[in-house]
Formats: sequence, C-alpha cells, structure tokens
Amino acid sequence: MNGAESLVRTLVAGGVDVCFANPGTSEMHFVAALDRVEGMRCVLGLFEGVVTGAADGYFRMKGTPASTLLHLGPGLANGLANLHNAKKARSGIVNIVGQHATYHIGYNAPLTSDIEGLARPMSDWVRTSPNAKAVAADGAAAIAAAKSAPPQIATLILPADTAWNEADGIAKVPPPAQQPGFSSDAVAKAAKILHSGGTQNLLLVTGNALSERGLALAQQIAGKTGCKVLGQTYHPRMARGRGRFSIDRIPYVIEQALPLLKDFKNIVLVEANDPIAFFAYPNKPSVLRPEGCEVHRMTAWGDNSIAALEALSDALGAKPADVKPQKLAEIVKPTGALNYATIAQAIGYAMPENAIVVDESITTGRGFFPLTAAARPHDWLQNMGGSIGFSTPVATGAAVACPDRKVLCMVGDGSAMYTIQSLWTQAREGLDVVTIVFANRIYQILRGEFDGVGAGEPGKRAQDMLKLDRPTIDFVALARGMGVPGRAVTTADELNKALAEAVAEPGPRLIEVQM
Amino acid sequence: MNGAESLVRTLVAGGVDVCFANPGTSEMHFVAALDRVEGMRCVLGLFEGVVTGAADGYFRMKGTPASTLLHLGPGLANGLANLHNAKKARSGIVNIVGQHATYHIGYNAPLTSDIEGLARPMSDWVRTSPNAKAVAADGAAAIAAAKSAPPQIATLILPADTAWNEADGIAKVPPPAQQPGFSSDAVAKAAKILHSGGTQNLLLVTGNALSERGLALAQQIAGKTGCKVLGQTYHPRMARGRGRFSIDRIPYVIEQALPLLKDFKNIVLVEANDPIAFFAYPNKPSVLRPEGCEVHRMTAWGDNSIAALEALSDALGAKPADVKPQKLAEIVKPTGALNYATIAQAIGYAMPENAIVVDESITTGRGFFPLTAAARPHDWLQNMGGSIGFSTPVATGAAVACPDRKVLCMVGDGSAMYTIQSLWTQAREGLDVVTIVFANRIYQILRGEFDGVGAGEPGKRAQDMLKLDRPTIDFVALARGMGVPGRAVTTADELNKALAEAVAEPGPRLIEVQM
Repeated sequence: MNGAESLVRTLVAGGVDVCFANPGTSEMHFVAALDRVEGMRCVLGLFEGVVTGAADGYFRMKGTPASTLLHLGPGLANGLANLHNAKKARSGIVNIVGQHATYHIGYNAPLTSDIEGLARPMSDWVRTSPNAKAVAADGAAAIAAAKSAPPQIATLILPADTAWNEADGIAKVPPPAQQPGFSSDAVAKAAKILHSGGTQNLLLVTGNALSERGLALAQQIAGKTGCKVLGQTYHPRMARGRGRFSIDRIPYVIEQALPLLKDFKNIVLVEANDPIAFFAYPNKPSVLRPEGCEVHRMTAWGDNSIAALEALSDALGAKPADVKPQKLAEIVKPTGALNYATIAQAIGYAMPENAIVVDESITTGRGFFPLTAAARPHDWLQNMGGSIGFSTPVATGAAVACPDRKVLCMVGDGSAMYTIQSLWTQAREGLDVVTIVFANRIYQILRGEFDGVGAGEPGKRAQDMLKLDRPTIDFVALARGMGVPGRAVTTADELNKALAEAVAEPGPRLIEVQM
Repeated sequence: MNGAESLVRTLVAGGVDVCFANPGTSEMHFVAALDRVEGMRCVLGLFEGVVTGAADGYFRMKGTPASTLLHLGPGLANGLANLHNAKKARSGIVNIVGQHATYHIGYNAPLTSDIEGLARPMSDWVRTSPNAKAVAADGAAAIAAAKSAPPQIATLILPADTAWNEADGIAKVPPPAQQPGFSSDAVAKAAKILHSGGTQNLLLVTGNALSERGLALAQQIAGKTGCKVLGQTYHPRMARGRGRFSIDRIPYVIEQALPLLKDFKNIVLVEANDPIAFFAYPNKPSVLRPEGCEVHRMTAWGDNSIAALEALSDALGAKPADVKPQKLAEIVKPTGALNYATIAQAIGYAMPENAIVVDESITTGRGFFPLTAAARPHDWLQNMGGSIGFSTPVATGAAVACPDRKVLCMVGDGSAMYTIQSLWTQAREGLDVVTIVFANRIYQILRGEFDGVGAGEPGKRAQDMLKLDRPTIDFVALARGMGVPGRAVTTADELNKALAEAVAEPGPRLIEVQM
C-alpha cells in the first residue's frame, strides 16, 4: 500500500472515520484510497471554511475527532478562521494538508507557500511527513494529539510523494495524553471558599461542567452554599432546557457585565477564564471582576470537571435535595411582530426534544437564553473564537455526528454570508439542519461597537460599511441555488409555521427571518 | 486627529484612495475617519477573500496599490488565499489589519491570535504599529513597500488603541525602492544568444513585457532573429487581441509542454520563471526544459523589461519592418452545441473593445487562447498562485479600477463557489462585470489530475469528491439572491444572445453556461 492508503487505514483504525474534505491534485491519492478502504465517510465541502468548521461541530457533538483534507497552503488558509474558532473551543481535529512532492517544493511552483508557518498560529501540533514510510506513524501521532486532554488541533502536512510512494502499513495510535483528573487541593480550596460567603461567591463554569451532570452538581452546590453560578459569555456546548439547571452567562456588553460581577468577593473557575472583555474600549476595563475579588482556579481545560464537582459537592455536603427550584420563563407560542422576544419564543416553542442549537445569532440572539430555558432538552453550541462564519459549518458537522437529532442553526445575515456554501453540503448529505437567518440587513453588532469604541455617530460613509441593505440579500434564493428549500417570514405566526414544517420534515431547510 | 484618521489621511495623500474592506470592532475608528476625510473610496466585501482579491485586481489594472481593511487574525486568514495569488502576481497591496488594543492582547480574548505569524507567509512586509504617533509613518512605509519594484504585499497591523489615541498628523511616503532598470550585460548576453541559432532560441516572457509595447518589441525581435516567443503558463496581465502580437503559453499539461520545449538550446527569460511543472507527478520531470538547454535571465520582476527589450531590439538591429504577419483564427459567431471551441468563439465575438478578461476558466478555457487572439483589443488576467476563488474578486477590483471598461469574468463552477459573495459587491457598486460560469458540475481538473498522479480510475467514493452534480448548483438563483441578474444558457446561440445583452447593458450580469 502507498503512503496515502496507510494514512487512511491508520485513521479508520484509530477511530477517525469521518473526513471533511476539499481536495486538490496533491490529495488525489488520499481520495483514491477511499475506494480501497472501508469505513471512512468523506464529506465534500465547496470551501475550506465549511470543512474545518464542520470538523469542529463534529467534535463538539461526538467527542472524538474527524479529519479534514485540505489543498496546500491556500486550502489550509481558507480553513484557518474556523480552525481558530475550533482551537478556542478546544475541539480535537486531525487536519491533513497536501503539499508538493518533497523534491518539487524548491522550484517555487505557483501553489508553493510556507504551510507550516500558516498552520502554526491555529494548530497545537504541526508536522510534515518526511517520507511514505513515516506517514502512518505521523498520522497516528496526529490522532493522539487530537484525542489528548485537552484536545488539540493537529495538522499533518503530506508531501505528494509521501502519499504515492510505498509505505509499510498502518500504525497504532499511541496513548493520548491522559486526562489528568483534577487537583484535590484545588477542590479543597474551592470548598473552603464556597463554605462561607454565600452570594459573594461565584462559581464560573464552562467546558465539561456544562453537561447535564455537571450542571446538576453545580446546582446542588449553589443550593447548599448560596453561591451564584454563571457561565462565561460563550461556551463550546451547554446542556439546556426543561429539567436542567439554567444559568445565565456573563453579558458581552461591558456595561451589563460590570454590575453583574461587582459584588463578588471570590470567583471559583471551573474550566472558565478569568472574566475579561471581548474587546478593549477606551476608558473601560479589560478585566471585568471588581478590584479585590479573588480568583481561584479549580479546574482547567482538559481536567475532569465532573469528578472535581462531585468531590466539591461531597466536601460541601451538597445533595440533590439542596437544589432550589428555578422559575423559568414559560414557553409560549408567540404571535404578532418579529422581535428578539417573539423569535426566541418561536424557537423555544418549536424546538424538538434533543435538538442541537448552533448559535451565531449575534445581536438578535443576545436575549434568547432566558426565553428558551424551559424548552425541550437540547444542546446549545456557541462561537468561542469570535470569527464569524462559524455556525453553518458547525451545524453541518454536528448533523453528520448526530443523524438522529435536529440541528437548528441560528445565524445573522452578515455571518451567514461568510460560509453560505455549507448549504450545498447539507443538501448533498441530506443533513437535518434548519438554518434560521436573522436578516436585519446590517452588521448590527458593529453599529453598537462603533459607539462603544467612542467613534460617535456613523456618518453616511461609515454606515455604508455596516449596512447590508443595498442590495438586500435573498437568502431563500441562495438556499434554492444550493438545493435547500427555504421560506421567508415576516411575522411570528409565519415563523411558527415555518419552524413547525422544518421540524416535521427531515433534511435541510432555510428560514429567512426578515426583521 | 487620532491614529486612524492620521492613517486614512496618509493613505489618501500617498495615492492609496481605494479601500476594500470588511471591518470589525477594532477597525471602527478607521471607518469613522472615512466621514472626516475626503477622497477615500471604501468598498465593502461580505467575505475577506473578496476584499484581498479585489485589491489584487485593482492593482493589476491601475498599477498602483489599494488598501484592504481586515478584522484581526481570522479576518486576515480569510483573505490569505487571495493574498497568496496577489503575491505570486507581484501585485502591490496595503493591508490594514486591526488588532486588540496593546494592553488587551495579553488577556487572550476570543479573537486573539498570532496576526504577524499569519501575515508573514503571504506578505513581503509586516509591521505592527506600536502607538498612535507611529501609525502615520508606518502607513507611509507600507505604501512605499507596496509601491516598490517589484511591488510588495505590505501588511500593517493596527492595535485598537493606536487607532483611537491622539496622533501627530499625516506622514509623507518615503521614496519606494526604485525600479532598477535593467542590466546592460544581461541584454548584451541575450543579444549574443539570439543573434544566432534561430528557432533553437526561446524568448520566454511575462510581467511588463506583456504590455502592447513589450509584445511589439518581442515580435520584431522574433522576426529579426527567428527565435520563438512564448509566455509562461499564466500571467498577471497580457495585452491581447487584434493588432497585437499573439503568443502561445507553455501548456499546463506536462505531456504537452515537454514536446513544445524539447528542441530549444537556449531560453532567455524576460521576468519569466525557468519553466517548471505546476505540480509534481510520479515519473514525470519537474523541470520542463530539455537537458542541455541553457537558461539566461535578461530581466527579473521589478526590472524595466520594456527598456531592456528596446535595448535588445537595438542591439539586434530589429525594426518594426521585421515583424512577420501572424495568421490568427478568424473570429466567428458560433452556433450549435456548447463546447470549449464554441464558447471561446462566442466570447471572442462578443468581447467589446478594451475589455478586461479575468480568466479562471480552468479546464474549459485551456483552448480559449488561440480562438480569441483576433478579438477586439483587450487585457487578459490570470491566476498566478493557483488558489481557486481568484476570479470573481479580481474582476470586482478590476471594475473598480477601470469603470469605463467591461470586465468579463470567466470562471469554473467549482472556483466560483469559493468567493461567490463577490456578486453582492458588484451589485452594490454597480460594477460592469459579466460573470460567465462554466457549469460542468465537476472539478474537471481533478478528474485529469487523478489519472495524472497515477491514482488510476476513480471509484464511486473518489468520484463523489470530484463531482458537483448532487445537487446541481443554480448560479442564476445565487446571482439573483445577491442582486445580480442572470441567465442560464445551453447552446451557442443562447450564449451569443446572453453575451450581447450583457455587453450592451451596464452593470453586473451572470451567465451560467450549462455544459
């Protein structure tokens, strides 16, 4: 077998059996191997941002890495923004990037570039395979890196001759860096902090702590000690809905975040970061916690936060009976005009059991959380890296990972245009994704940020850089052009109807919410 | 004035008065300055690949750099593939990339990344401005870099506080690195080579030598000496059409290139590269010239090839009267079925005087050159970096540069899907671009490459990675969705009619050529 086949076989044997791909000449032997190797599902994306974002969504839902297949430096470059988001979400991904044959690189052919240099800023692990016999072991090492704790973005660069020359066979994946568990000392200190002080203590959580079990533990700890539990502003994945502990997040807007945090004396971090502002603004703080507030890290990314929360709960003597009941906003079927509240209500009402919500709703969705807290149980995925064009690819990959679950992809119109090609892959693969585009015809977030950074009121030319109203984008036409049926809605009743239809029917759909 | 305004004023004063932009929070002060500074045209793109490709097209037609405005690392990353193409075409561009405020970078906020690391592989010049007072001078240095000979991709990274803090004023652009002219010795040696040997000598040209004047000089040198004149496989820009010297290019396909080059004893390079294969293939050479063939570089990128060709022509005693008449394929209005020949004829027939042709026709267009040689005079732009998604942005920028010229953008369906968002910018700006999509529903080039790299016949799964037929893409719907009228054609007569209509009417149009 050649190097490419040894890699594909190593991937499949190592449990990496989905490949999101946009291959070129240098990757043709990898593609050819697909016909000789059973067990690898290869999913074509028409743009590499779709490919890498899909791998992110796949990992978040499946908990195990997919691979990507990318064409030299520029193909990798096109996928970097969503690799950035994936890296910040601590998703594990095995990127396979083609390269010129080793002896051809020096000729500076048109596609030649510094692939390792491009890969490094958005990868945790980078290696170029030196020859065909090394490819399987390098692939296995990449899998181990992607599966380690915390997971890594592993980028393996494959010169074309290492793909077509004779290899030795497959390689076994070395043991990934083990989950270190947690520090008993850190838990003991957290218990000491939370033991007294009640509402002056904040348990700030993200990552694995946001599973149903992690939230239940946090809830009984809060019930026992009186501490407040908050989430970061964004999370890779959060279990939500009826019967689960509903927590608020630190608001994106600094003026809202500061008063929420101002009275805390202690913050216990469970995978979360010390709260800082998304951006800097003149004369506003970067650090959001009040002066004098002490920060204690209980677990970091890659730790076993569930076990740590169990130990903390035990140390505090917290029990399920300590849980204080929550009063959640009632789920109602809205009527009337579309606004953030009626949209949230419509989505909360229509959401089927076990739905996956991918949230790139930006400004429109800032108030969605409380209004959907009592919806049927679901998972909620957010953008950890702030690079827009995240949601439609992530929804694509989540749907590949979970074919039995409905995916609701909520996306602003500006963000949707970044990686709109995702719709074609959804149509080709028959993926169960409902894309809900909030078409307010503006980068609304920038309208707020313009003022936020002290730039005052935008004049005519500045407004032209923020608005998407000339021409307006017909998302239903775009969807149809890529084989996805769509519908535009202008009222809550129309949105209810479109969502009911989309939830009832399998396969991709798009709803343009005209605001 | 603040740093952002000092930069915008420096750009305008330095002759950089077009900015292709997709700004975010960290760039809002730059956007705000647009309303206070006269003379900067800011053009919004919905994806950064559109922005950077447009700057490339602008430079190629205008000969002077535009700027871009990009949002932190991920925004730059999205634009890297077309910066790669621009760099390989030696286009000058001033990239302005926002960054977190200097004091905020260390907090590792979601959008934090290694921007300089990302910029370096696709930039010739990279600098991060340290403070507001340095921004104007740094911007001026970036302009000088972009305007130097050969031109450079200059990337200036602007932390947000350098934009909003008080600056000193504008800065004067230092003299760009001067055009070195050419080497008289190199010309004398070229003359000596070409003086004898006749058809055993090849003058291989690109760059500035492909202007109308450069080609005329090459033609009289060829007439005088009997040498052959060829172009590289791809060129940034070539003057073509009736009354201009029509030259062939070295074919992309190695099996066609080798016999064409096999008898040459000497190659004189005019900006061109020593001919090498685009990709490596097993058991095929990377170097395309025959063994024993000597290579002599007369001019390099950044030299004054026109002056060098004039000197060479003088040294050889070549005169306009030496020109041998060329027999070019007649321009005919085709009829019947669509194939590469009838498509080329239809485009050659419809092409208006002074058209700009942006060529990303990939496989469909490989035979277009001879059939359009006698069309009305036009310029022909190609992809120098091999990263697809090049043409629709480059066409956008070319149309901004030359509002009085019709732009014909020829693009394969696979390539068109990379940066399809260009259509929206064309609609918004009312740009005179006709996008002609060759919809063969396959990455046809890869079908050939699959065989070329020795992977044999693709099986079912491999074919799925090459074909775009499930679902088929409706480009007319995509265009309409972005405000561009479109039409699908299935015969030569329909294509003639659609082209005539598109040429007659100003503003953007799309033609889907269903093959």
